Amino acid sequence: MADQKLRIVATIKVKPESRDQNLVNAFKALVEETKKEEGNISYILHNDVKDPNTFVFVEEWRSPADIEKHMKSPHFTGFVGKLKAHLVAAPQIVTIRPLL
Amino acid sequence: MADQKLRIVATIKVKPESRDQNLVNAFKALVEETKKEEGNISYILHNDVKDPNTFVFVEEWRSPADIEKHMKSPHFTGFVGKLKAHLVAAPQIVTIRPLL
Repeated sequence: MADQKLRIVATIKVKPESRDQNLVNAFKALVEETKKEEGNISYILHNDVKDPNTFVFVEEWRSPADIEKHMKSPHFTGFVGKLKAHLVAAPQIVTIRPLL
Repeated sequence: MADQKLRIVATIKVKPESRDQNLVNAFKALVEETKKEEGNISYILHNDVKDPNTFVFVEEWRSPADIEKHMKSPHFTGFVGKLKAHLVAAPQIVTIRPLL
């Protein structure tokens, strides 16, 4: 079976007033739970060096099926629910396959 | 000295007619030379699973200074020169710092 590994880059822009410890704690909880998922290889949250209100996840997954499972998980769906009120725009999510 | 590691996500959209072996070879040469740079930790080229004409670099660098050095390197500036004619839009480049 060909290597099914995929990466996801997810860009999340929040309102300036939303960038507080509650939001950071919500991100932390999501990261901790996601890293426990069998199909997750890496799941790293970043800040845009030019904009502290822009967060970027760089994720690596074992297969498309593992991504689907993640997106149905309580910790992910719960996080998305909490995040909605804080968003400036819809998150930009791109799924990419390694080439070189 | 605090960890200065940075990642870059660079999204490059090319014209459909430009997506040929020459372009792939140019990407290959850039990746090979860049991986030789002392300050480069990883430099992986991807394709957007939804669009074969969208390429995404996910890069990891030891420090901002190493990124600057890279962007002045002959292999990078030469690649950028070659790429211009093939672009649909200006590349989107975001520099991000790991948080969690």
